[in-house]
Amino acid sequence: MEKPILRKAASAPKRNSDGARPEFAHWLETTNEITRGFLAAASIPGLINMAGGLPAAETFPAGEVAEIAKRVVTEFPAETLGYGPIDGLPAFRDELARRFSTPSLRLSRANVLVTTSGMQGLDLVGKIFLERGDLVAGQFPTYLGAIDAWRPREPEYRRLMFNAEAFDPVAGLAGAQFAYTVPNFSNPSGKLVSLEMRKALVAAAQQTGTWLVEDDPYGSLYYDDKPLPRLLDLAATDPANGVYDGPVIYLGTLSKEIAPGLRVGWVIAAPDVIEAMTIAKQGSDLCTSGVTQHIALATMQDGIIERSRPAILALYRERRDALCAAMAEHLSEWFEWEVPVGGMFVWAVSRNPELDTDRLSEVALQAGVTVSPSSVFDPELEYRRAIRVNFTLNSPERLEEGVRRLAQVMRTL
Amino acid sequence: MEKPILRKAASAPKRNSDGARPEFAHWLETTNEITRGFLAAASIPGLINMAGGLPAAETFPAGEVAEIAKRVVTEFPAETLGYGPIDGLPAFRDELARRFSTPSLRLSRANVLVTTSGMQGLDLVGKIFLERGDLVAGQFPTYLGAIDAWRPREPEYRRLMFNAEAFDPVAGLAGAQFAYTVPNFSNPSGKLVSLEMRKALVAAAQQTGTWLVEDDPYGSLYYDDKPLPRLLDLAATDPANGVYDGPVIYLGTLSKEIAPGLRVGWVIAAPDVIEAMTIAKQGSDLCTSGVTQHIALATMQDGIIERSRPAILALYRERRDALCAAMAEHLSEWFEWEVPVGGMFVWAVSRNPELDTDRLSEVALQAGVTVSPSSVFDPELEYRRAIRVNFTLNSPERLEEGVRRLAQVMRTL
Repeated sequence: MEKPILRKAASAPKRNSDGARPEFAHWLETTNEITRGFLAAASIPGLINMAGGLPAAETFPAGEVAEIAKRVVTEFPAETLGYGPIDGLPAFRDELARRFSTPSLRLSRANVLVTTSGMQGLDLVGKIFLERGDLVAGQFPTYLGAIDAWRPREPEYRRLMFNAEAFDPVAGLAGAQFAYTVPNFSNPSGKLVSLEMRKALVAAAQQTGTWLVEDDPYGSLYYDDKPLPRLLDLAATDPANGVYDGPVIYLGTLSKEIAPGLRVGWVIAAPDVIEAMTIAKQGSDLCTSGVTQHIALATMQDGIIERSRPAILALYRERRDALCAAMAEHLSEWFEWEVPVGGMFVWAVSRNPELDTDRLSEVALQAGVTVSPSSVFDPELEYRRAIRVNFTLNSPERLEEGVRRLAQVMRTL
Repeated sequence: MEKPILRKAASAPKRNSDGARPEFAHWLETTNEITRGFLAAASIPGLINMAGGLPAAETFPAGEVAEIAKRVVTEFPAETLGYGPIDGLPAFRDELARRFSTPSLRLSRANVLVTTSGMQGLDLVGKIFLERGDLVAGQFPTYLGAIDAWRPREPEYRRLMFNAEAFDPVAGLAGAQFAYTVPNFSNPSGKLVSLEMRKALVAAAQQTGTWLVEDDPYGSLYYDDKPLPRLLDLAATDPANGVYDGPVIYLGTLSKEIAPGLRVGWVIAAPDVIEAMTIAKQGSDLCTSGVTQHIALATMQDGIIERSRPAILALYRERRDALCAAMAEHLSEWFEWEVPVGGMFVWAVSRNPELDTDRLSEVALQAGVTVSPSSVFDPELEYRRAIRVNFTLNSPERLEEGVRRLAQVMRTL
């Protein structure tokens, strides 16, 4: 659910020169500036982009989507081309409820909101829960898109360091409006949240009342093992009592399973959260496109997601292995990392605590390679010791060349 | 750019019964409750919906859009299905700049932002300009979707009564972050803002510095006369000085010209406004769907908008005339109104200042017809003397039957 970081850092906009025009809202001054220089650089010939979180375009089932697009507009002209319900097409909501239900998790249409991308789910979470100064407890480091989405609401952040020995989930969640986590291959760290920690987080949410936002764009990208249970599954309320009403707010997307260009995502949550988010969505875009919703529904009904998955996993597994092999050969002098068992990223932490990866990123850009500096994943923009390296977009050969260029840069720093 | 008002009024969501969960953001408590009863009523058999602002589905060029959809996904798989630039596909932005440029208005790509519906344009305006308590100067009565979009930002409102004798544009705009107007067939009043007032508003914006938001979903729906110049045109800066950098922020949409289900709109504004809105859009949905953007671009390049327009105008002109004839026959005892020269609505004001149109709407619903009560177009929810009646969705026969039902209700009040 992420655009290349290159476009991230337009800084606070300038005021008009006459000075008489009203100021922009204050939050615009707080956007991260570190990658500003990347903006102009996207056109550098031969640049190897390992900064973004982009899927490989060759995985898009374009031929099938093209046929589906024609079919659904022809079959459902009023539903695809007219205004639809704010909360989504009923048939699509039902399909999502069905797909995520289990014997112990009973979901109905009332648990499902269709969103215009996973990012809109984050925007709506911010709109319904956050006022200036409210507390977000965020898995650290934190997906920069979530920070972007919530910036206009001006929250405060508490860092949740799941891997710290002293981490106490109840203390971590208490007093926050919600806790935020990407449990599957966290963006940016690529790490899995363990089953024990998942259970502890759900228990802490139930104890403290704090909502638990589970952002899961990478949940299908397990390359080596079987998927762990979702927080949503672990928070299932007794189905005998009716539909799901637990503390987990689950955000899903088609961006990694079919194609990001559809901009179709969904939220699964307690009915009163869905109702509040529906009010917020009404003032955000009224409804998600009927064209893209019907395409998304058809890709599910036609089994395209399941048919496409093995090839996607094989492609990305090969690329992960190629990146990690190249890094082991060229970068282990300066960085350490764990080989991720899924997702799209390797998170590499500098052995030298003094390395400033903001600076590294700028120099690397001049050398024809981009990676994401860790500061953009810190709501306070302070943590500068790590880089996030994407492996899904580029071929093994280009990944290796990108790593070589990084090593070249490290020698000069 | 509007869904039926029926779905408008989900009131502030209930809290979870355990009481321990954090509260929703305060603004959710301020949503209008008057049409809450409509929610359950959308399924009333035979209900005549004259409340919403819906285009007639028979105007959608479904066959052409279906072919285009297949073609663009096939031709541009990476651009339609991948992530795109936050601010929109360059070719689409260029096409929009070209379409809105005139000899005296020089627009470039830097003046254009693609949005996911016109409503998103309003949401982004709120995000970049409004903090709690900031002042919006809004044409009164005011489009309810704009009020919805800005509610999470918690602004204050100043009513601009363009038709009041004492109205002073400079005093009206001074001190506001922006002024908001729908100059063509204002939603809800259906009125045109006169050429003189347009010039006065632009002059006042230039004098005070206050931005001027021109929301123009109905600009192509002139049934009797030639269109008046846009505020954007009137604010054109000297082309010799470069691209447009004036105070007008223009919001457009394809919803009335092609189909709302695409959810494609645009903003035309000074480059620094576009830059700020792009930052806000990044955290809202990252980018608009490449599928729907490419469909929208193709409908422009193929001339579908221009080819479709005469039939749309003829259909809506006939419906306007049918509604106004029926109202003249059945409702003139209780209401007065002007026949609108364009747009989608008749705004009827009660002769009796004591009539409560909130109450009228509720009773009318029971009688099988919906209209929009004026309170929803008042940021303070106070003005209850008028109704907004849509004429684009229903056939002449159904419009007449709807008016008969309204008259029946008036006799019982």
